[in-house]
Order: sequence, then structure tokens, then C-alpha cells
Amino acid sequence: MIKRYLLAPGPTPVPPEALLAMAMPIIHHRAPDFLPVLESAKKGLQWLYQTKNDVLIICSTGTGGMVGSVNNFFNQGDKALVINAGNFGERWTKICNAYNLSVEEIRIDWGYTVKPDDIENALRKDPSIKGVFVQASETSTGVYHDIQAIAEIVRKYDNTILVVDAISALVAHDLRMDDWGIDVLIGGSQKGLMLPPGLAFVGVSEKAWKFAETCKSPKFYFNFMTERKKLKDNQTNFTSPVSLIIGLNECLRLLQTEGLENAFRRHEKLAQATRAAVKAIGLEMFTKESPSNSVTAICAPKGIDGQEIYKNLRVKYGITAAGGQGQAKGKIFRIAHLGYAGTFDTITAIAGVEMALKGMGYPVKLGTGVGAAQELLMV
Amino acid sequence: MIKRYLLAPGPTPVPPEALLAMAMPIIHHRAPDFLPVLESAKKGLQWLYQTKNDVLIICSTGTGGMVGSVNNFFNQGDKALVINAGNFGERWTKICNAYNLSVEEIRIDWGYTVKPDDIENALRKDPSIKGVFVQASETSTGVYHDIQAIAEIVRKYDNTILVVDAISALVAHDLRMDDWGIDVLIGGSQKGLMLPPGLAFVGVSEKAWKFAETCKSPKFYFNFMTERKKLKDNQTNFTSPVSLIIGLNECLRLLQTEGLENAFRRHEKLAQATRAAVKAIGLEMFTKESPSNSVTAICAPKGIDGQEIYKNLRVKYGITAAGGQGQAKGKIFRIAHLGYAGTFDTITAIAGVEMALKGMGYPVKLGTGVGAAQELLMV
Repeated sequence: MIKRYLLAPGPTPVPPEALLAMAMPIIHHRAPDFLPVLESAKKGLQWLYQTKNDVLIICSTGTGGMVGSVNNFFNQGDKALVINAGNFGERWTKICNAYNLSVEEIRIDWGYTVKPDDIENALRKDPSIKGVFVQASETSTGVYHDIQAIAEIVRKYDNTILVVDAISALVAHDLRMDDWGIDVLIGGSQKGLMLPPGLAFVGVSEKAWKFAETCKSPKFYFNFMTERKKLKDNQTNFTSPVSLIIGLNECLRLLQTEGLENAFRRHEKLAQATRAAVKAIGLEMFTKESPSNSVTAICAPKGIDGQEIYKNLRVKYGITAAGGQGQAKGKIFRIAHLGYAGTFDTITAIAGVEMALKGMGYPVKLGTGVGAAQELLMV
Repeated sequence: MIKRYLLAPGPTPVPPEALLAMAMPIIHHRAPDFLPVLESAKKGLQWLYQTKNDVLIICSTGTGGMVGSVNNFFNQGDKALVINAGNFGERWTKICNAYNLSVEEIRIDWGYTVKPDDIENALRKDPSIKGVFVQASETSTGVYHDIQAIAEIVRKYDNTILVVDAISALVAHDLRMDDWGIDVLIGGSQKGLMLPPGLAFVGVSEKAWKFAETCKSPKFYFNFMTERKKLKDNQTNFTSPVSLIIGLNECLRLLQTEGLENAFRRHEKLAQATRAAVKAIGLEMFTKESPSNSVTAICAPKGIDGQEIYKNLRVKYGITAAGGQGQAKGKIFRIAHLGYAGTFDTITAIAGVEMALKGMGYPVKLGTGVGAAQELLMV
């Protein structure tokens, strides 16, 4: 009998309160029962997004939110500045290319974060850039980009909007949509929000809605203008994923009880504790600067394949963490701190990593990393 | 947000497979649907009990099984030899007294186990003793009594049966009902069997059934002869707790997949790892000999109240372990290894104990106990 632990950067464990709520009989999405459900989700998301703007609820993965955020605000040939610092930065480029935008990339070595000055310079050099595309947390490298500083730059350009993929950052990082001036803020259900996969969320500023009005890109499913209209009547455009939205309300209720600051602090503490453990075990961080609160990317020790660490954790210890993606595959492994996660999830991850590494021949004194993490997790 | 961990010696965590099965719509206990359910439970329990005898399924707590095991095999005035080595030995005496048996006790200091020779001597001195009552695992002190040796003695006396409370020992210890000659073997659902509280199980030998035939003690609810008759028809005497029995089948299926030897070994390993951690942290075991695989009883360090350790674990770290009972209250705390428990439950418990103790001023190097446990839990 092997107990399973989910410590991947999405999907993440779902709290029992939400699992139970989602197991209730299905209600109809056009019947009056559903209206207060969506009303509540709408308000809760505005609280989470720290915004008075609309936050659309889309039945898709987070990538659907990204696709819609290209397809609804930009026309063919529009200039896009993509911050490509990893696998998900790369995805922005792919989506923009699919919709025939004219892409300029700021490419950053994996493990490093974008310098806001470089964005400022690019915009100054070419003010016709219509969109800046960035991740808040680049899940493939464990880097957090300084969204506040980037927003401060982009908001100075009337012809440019800032599109932030916060799929893995939402709830783990403070992202003040209105205060900072983020135009499009994308979230997903299966990360910090502690839900199963299946929902994307897109917060849209008034500035961005103006872009939408002149957007001629063909679309049917991810039609944000229509979603906005429907949202005013507490509906979604197509069949609402009712169970997931009922679960969303449960998770939002749990987060409201915890408090937003406390939720950020919880993720931050777990990430700090994990980094302290990494250091204590003598491992090297793959993330070289500005580590994310969502996920910690760790270099595999010399001579040990990162994917083997991932497999060892999963098969021998029941822990599903993550390996590397793209160019980092084999070189790293990653531990998430996202969602319904607390002190003993982090302890479990670190203890498991120590045992897996020792089993693979890496000289580690068991308990060293755990002890370093415990120091920071004492209450 | 605080995640909760249940590491008490019952109730214990229930595996998701069983929770889901128990959440299914209720079926009727006298309808044909239920017959294969009980048939399966009956066979599964015989497998678990390592017996060809009947294993009754009673809708009650484990104590109900104990009460029935006095009430169905003994008459007023019958001589009972009770092994009283803790709170649950004490319970045997109380039940025997409630039914006016003539009780002789072998009292053992808490933390120690009975010497089988003392039972042999008592039986030789007074062959009119009709029942020997003992715990397999004495949950209050963390001691395991040598049931095999005791059974070997009692089976030599035709006029005496051995009644074993294995409520907290079942699944955690090898208890070979038929091979060893245990006459009455009592289990409960909320321990090693990984179910919610609500079911007692009583295995009864042919020798014990003969005692039942001459028993005149008044009874209605815990009527084992009637339960035996009903069991042959795949029924229970009164309304069957259908959901719990459906869950029981699920847990038996999981245990059969794991294998009985592996289940014993799992509990043994977790208990050994916990004891290694106790030693590494510099704490003293409350159990002085023959420690149980079900629960580890640990002395509170000097100047620290055992109940406060329990409270600290629960309130600060979300871990529900156990304090002390009776004369051990305040002096000890206990960690269980029972049921749906694995490596990282033990790691969680030990890490939590280290942090709680450090927070209460006990000088512990964090990670020391965890490291000692990890050594033994590597795979």
C-alpha cells in the first residue's frame, strides 16, 4: 500500500470541502439555482484578483485563457513583445505566431528573470508594440518576474497592454491587478486555487476592453466580449462547468477565511523552507534569481538524471513532483508549494527527496534538509 | 489554512477508495443486493483473522464486541482471569464485574507485558478459571502481549477459553486465530482496518461456541448464537450498517492486494522508525518491553506536560495524536501507526513532535528524529 502525494506544479491537491461540494448532484446552468453560484464566483474572483474589472470564467485549461488573451485583443500583424524565459514564455510565442502576430522576443537564459529595463527599452524603441506577454511565475524554471515593475512601465504606453500568465502564480504571489495596472491577468483552476483542472480565469482591464473592440481576429469559443455580456447576467457563454464553479466557490471561501496575505505568506514560507533544505542538502537551485513561491526548481546532482529523481520519488515513495521541461529535461527536478499545501507537504517532499537521492548514491545525511525546513516552518 | 493529520490510535484515516464506496447510495440490508456484500465481508474477515471459524459482524464499537464476549460465553459467578496491564485491561475487569463474573487479575505495571508463565501458574492453581481475558496490543501503554505463547497455554485447558481484545492490534500484528488456538478474537473497524468507527468483529472458535451453548446470561443485542445463525444466510441480526460493510469490503480488498504479511511489516516498520526517532531525539519510551506495532507511547520530557504536547501538535501543527490515559495522563503522549498510514505519516508525526517540543523549550536539533526514521523507511 503506497499513499500518494501530489506535489506537482498543477494539478494540485483539492481540499475535502471542495471535493465534497463538487460531488453534489449537478444543477442546470441556465436554471435559477445557478445564478447565485456564478454571482458568488464572480465576486470571489474579483477579491482574489484585487480588481473591480470583470474576471471571465472560461471552461478550458489555462492555455485556453492564454489563447483567448491573444485572440481577443490583437489583430493579425500586431506587434507583440514576448518575455521568453522558459517553456511557458515559449508558449506565448507559439500562440502569438499561430494568430500571425509579429513577435519580438526578449529571450532570457533559463533560471533568470527579465530585467524590466529591457522591456522599457524595447517599448521606447518601438512604441507600436501592442502587447507585452509575460509569465508571473515561469513554472519551467521557478522564476518570478517582477510584474509590478513591468506593469509600471507598460501602463505609460497608451497603445500597449500587459498580458500576464499568472496561471501558476495566482494565490502564491501578490498580484494587484488594479493597483499595479495589469491589463489581462490569466489564472487556472488546478494551481493555487486548489481545484481540479478545467477552468481558466481572465481578468480584463478597461484599457484592454478597448483593444477588444477593434479586434477582428476570428473567434467563436474564446469570445471574451460575449463572455463579458453573459457574465453581467451571471452566466457563461456556453454550458457552465457547474461542479467546478461550485468547487471554486468553496475554495474561494476557504481562501477568504485564510486571508489573501496569509495565503501568499503560506506559499512564500513553504518555498523558503524548501530552498533552505536544498541548500542544507548541498544541492544547487536551478533558479538563479527571483525564485517563485509556486515551485522550486532544483538541479539534479552531477551524474544523476533529474527524470530519475522524479521517477524514484513517484515509484518508491508515492510522491508526484515534477521533472524538467524542454532544455531543462534531465537536468532538474521541481517541487511545488501550490494549492492545498502546508508544512507537512513540504516536509514530505524534502524527506522523500533525501531518501530518493540517498538511494541513488548521492551522499546526504538524512534529516538535514528536513531540519533546515522545520526551522522556518515552526509556529 | 491548516491541514489535518489523524495519527491517533483510532479512529484512523480512511482510504479514499473506502470513503467513495461508503458515499454510494444506501442499499437495503434485507434485499438481495446485500447478500453478496455480506458474503464477501464474511470471507474477507476469515482471511484477515486467519481462521475457518465464524467472524461475527456487530454494529457497535469495539467495546460492544468485548461486552458480547463476556455476555455470550460466561455465566454469573464464572471465574475470569484478567490480564490488567493498562486502561483496556482495566476495561475487561469492569465488564466482567458488570456481568458478575468472579474476577482474578494479573496486574502488571504500566509499560510492561504479562509473563505467560504467570498465566500458566494461575491456571494450574485454579483450573476452574473459565476465561482468560487479555489485550493483544494494550493501547494505553503501547505494549504487545505475547498472544501466541498465551494461547499455547490456554488451549491445554479444556475448561478455559482465551478471549483476546485485538481491537488495536488487528492488521498491525500477526494473530493466527486457528494456528495458535485463540478462542475469541475481537476487532474494531476504526483501527488497522482503516474504516470509520461503528463495527466490531468477533471471531469465535468451536470450543468457545460450546461455552455459548451453556451460557444463560441475559442478552438481546449482542446475541452471538443468533448472529451466527444469521451470518450463515449472509445477514446480521438487526439492521446491517450497510455503508460500513461496503467500506469494509473495500478495505479488505486493499489489504488483500497489499498482502497480510506486508501489512504487518508496514506497521512494524513505522513503529520501529518511530522508536528510532524517539531515541535519536533523546526521549524515553513509556513502553518498557515488547512494544506494539499499533501505537508508540513516549514519555514527556521532564517539566513538560504530555497533554500539552498533544495540544501543541493539534493546535499548532494540525496533527491529532494522543495524550495519556488513566495513570499515564500528563506523563506521556502517543503516536499511532495504524490503518491507512505510510512513511510520510510517520515522518509528519516525528517532524511535528520535534517542532512542538522545540517550541515548548525542549532542546532538540530539528531533523534528528526524522533522519533516524528515514534510515529505516528507505526503500
